[in-house]
Amino acid sequence: MTISLFRYAKAGGQRVMKAVLIVCDGMADRPVPELAYKTPLEIARKPNMDWLAKHGVCGIMDTVEAGVPPGSDTAHLALLGYNPFEVYTGRGPFEAAGAGIDLKPGDIAFRANFATVDENGLIVDRRAGRIEETKPLEEALHKIKIKGAEIIFKATVGHRGVLVLRGAGLSHEVSDSDPHATGVKPLKIVPRLEVEKKVPEYPVIAGGVRKLVIRRSRAAKTAKILNEFSKRAHEILKDHELNKTRVKEGKLPANYILIRGPGIVPHLIPLEERMGIKGACVAAAALVKGVCRLAGMTVVDVPGATGSVNTDLGAKVKATLKLLENHDLVLLHIKGLDEASHDRDPKKKVEFIEKIDSYLPQLIEVADFIVLTADHTTPVSVGDHTADPVPVVIYGPGVRVDDVKSFGEREAAKGGLGRISGRHLLPILADLMGKGKKFGA
Amino acid sequence: MTISLFRYAKAGGQRVMKAVLIVCDGMADRPVPELAYKTPLEIARKPNMDWLAKHGVCGIMDTVEAGVPPGSDTAHLALLGYNPFEVYTGRGPFEAAGAGIDLKPGDIAFRANFATVDENGLIVDRRAGRIEETKPLEEALHKIKIKGAEIIFKATVGHRGVLVLRGAGLSHEVSDSDPHATGVKPLKIVPRLEVEKKVPEYPVIAGGVRKLVIRRSRAAKTAKILNEFSKRAHEILKDHELNKTRVKEGKLPANYILIRGPGIVPHLIPLEERMGIKGACVAAAALVKGVCRLAGMTVVDVPGATGSVNTDLGAKVKATLKLLENHDLVLLHIKGLDEASHDRDPKKKVEFIEKIDSYLPQLIEVADFIVLTADHTTPVSVGDHTADPVPVVIYGPGVRVDDVKSFGEREAAKGGLGRISGRHLLPILADLMGKGKKFGA
Repeated sequence: MTISLFRYAKAGGQRVMKAVLIVCDGMADRPVPELAYKTPLEIARKPNMDWLAKHGVCGIMDTVEAGVPPGSDTAHLALLGYNPFEVYTGRGPFEAAGAGIDLKPGDIAFRANFATVDENGLIVDRRAGRIEETKPLEEALHKIKIKGAEIIFKATVGHRGVLVLRGAGLSHEVSDSDPHATGVKPLKIVPRLEVEKKVPEYPVIAGGVRKLVIRRSRAAKTAKILNEFSKRAHEILKDHELNKTRVKEGKLPANYILIRGPGIVPHLIPLEERMGIKGACVAAAALVKGVCRLAGMTVVDVPGATGSVNTDLGAKVKATLKLLENHDLVLLHIKGLDEASHDRDPKKKVEFIEKIDSYLPQLIEVADFIVLTADHTTPVSVGDHTADPVPVVIYGPGVRVDDVKSFGEREAAKGGLGRISGRHLLPILADLMGKGKKFGA
Repeated sequence: MTISLFRYAKAGGQRVMKAVLIVCDGMADRPVPELAYKTPLEIARKPNMDWLAKHGVCGIMDTVEAGVPPGSDTAHLALLGYNPFEVYTGRGPFEAAGAGIDLKPGDIAFRANFATVDENGLIVDRRAGRIEETKPLEEALHKIKIKGAEIIFKATVGHRGVLVLRGAGLSHEVSDSDPHATGVKPLKIVPRLEVEKKVPEYPVIAGGVRKLVIRRSRAAKTAKILNEFSKRAHEILKDHELNKTRVKEGKLPANYILIRGPGIVPHLIPLEERMGIKGACVAAAALVKGVCRLAGMTVVDVPGATGSVNTDLGAKVKATLKLLENHDLVLLHIKGLDEASHDRDPKKKVEFIEKIDSYLPQLIEVADFIVLTADHTTPVSVGDHTADPVPVVIYGPGVRVDDVKSFGEREAAKGGLGRISGRHLLPILADLMGKGKKFGA
């Protein structure tokens, strides 16, 4: 690979710049009492991250917006330069894209669970005894045809799946059937016009009312199709051979499809069209893969990438370097730290940060630009995403190297980037890569 | 001049505060290898800029938006407090305003070139042999009348001019006739609804379609008028006495008008109405003058102001001080550094920064507030505008003086303003001048 030879070629020159955007899921934290009120990132021995901080420009970043704890989906939309407030309506589309379904803008997508209901229709288990083999069930469901929408159902991992409705006049503004409880019936799906309450009672302009009427009728039509699908799916599944066998074996039958997380597939202008950046993604998490796919990026499956601390980092870095040969930007997503944070395990978090650090030289060696950041803060003291800004460093030719010498939440706050918004990160990087698009003359 | 006596009068007091906003075009840069990885601003000897930094509050600023390389027009719109994403559709209106045409909101304006086409209609020279005397040609074009729009054409400098269409039902969403090439015919002007592809195909709501139909029909009407203008202009110009003489002299005839850069004239609420600030502008660049004129500011012509490093800075400073007597704010635009950056000449840039610095005491002496900044970064390593934030200092009574002791891109990033957006600069200054407008009670 000859890329590194050109490393300090002038920004804006003729040659193509290569960048790696490393997103360490949930890496950022708050001061931890057990770590002498340092954060895991501050206490970890991470010479390579510190090297990046010393030779790059640092800052802190509100991935989505100050005070808003980001989801992994909205965070990655923002990190790719999209405004999640404009394009995100629910998790369904990104799960479905991550599952490999070829979505079209306007499709309505849901997350789905195989579940067990008893003869009275009450939910016994929301995960159908954590069933694993669902492919035959998926195939049986393919015969469901309902007027008004094309139905696409795909089983994914374990009891999970995704459901997509395609057609004109549909809406994502419908409720879930999953009550998140057992001993009750699945919920009837109804129109749910969340924004409705935000419509002011004045001024009632003609267009506004008309739009609302259209939205209501679309949501009603969609809810009707979904209720019909739920009924027909139950009818098919309850008599399916696989379920009969399961019952004989004393296992719970997967005889119901619970759905949730509706969203409309947004029209995302592909990264390449929008910024002239040919992008690729290395990730284990389906949700992140889904966001990247919808952004028009190349998404690869890396054997050994688990989304956990036992993931094969070497394989992911190798895949990143390979993709860099014919892409401008590779987003390398590393999930394990978020898991450690959800487990409230600061030691595990420190250790995995140190492990990630040991793989950085391979990337620094080759890429022109390295951006290292997190998609959100997940404090071990909280065990869930919070809105604290994340640290970010941009390393590469032309950056205004600042005085920050080590990479951490509080050191980065003293850096030359100041406090930026997540959706400006990629435009900032693109500009440094010589791909800025001037607005005006 | 008695202004200076009141210099440290309390902010918000009765007397009128005077401010100078110095915009050094393209002054900001990236670390330059030939300057030991300092920027021209960091390495220049500029005691007065440093004095301002030491006695003022510093920060960095995204003139338009983080990651977006600003044009001079969009940058100045933002620096005057307007949102360029709302008011900017193209360069034409600002060029036309800069040429002194009295524009009305809704006018459609274009940049125009006198060009040469041969007997087959192929472009021989896009600049008509760099013709200089075009006034007689302009006058001949005044007789063109086309149904549907009032036509205003004005020749400006050299082969350049501006074209304005005025009337109901016109649109800026049309293509250019200038192919930016020779040996080809001028392009036929067609509707170009740029935003169209951004209009999602779903949900096609009634209002959206209707709006699109209206936009299409307006663009078609405008394109038709422009094609007719092009044809009639060619007919008039090809037989014009001046061109006949040129041909006899072996010069290229200016027998075609190429047009480009369409934009609709926005309704800019004048600075005085919006902020209670009576503003004036000292600039050589027509584009900057145009923005200031459309903002309702006084725009003067300063003899000796060239927009180059050979400009008469003394005359510009003198004009600034004169205008300050009966204006609250004078925007002093200095162009030369951008030229040095486009020439990729760091030494020229350093020298001109030092020259600008030497003129500052005259302004510091008189004005209550001095704001010093750049409209955008133009790295000498790139030779074009980039999105890197620019440094800014606000000096004057009441500012929260910070620890920054010298004026530069990286020092300013440590300042008390943090990272701000260009369109907040003038409201911040207005507030310091005692002209803030309380929102709420």
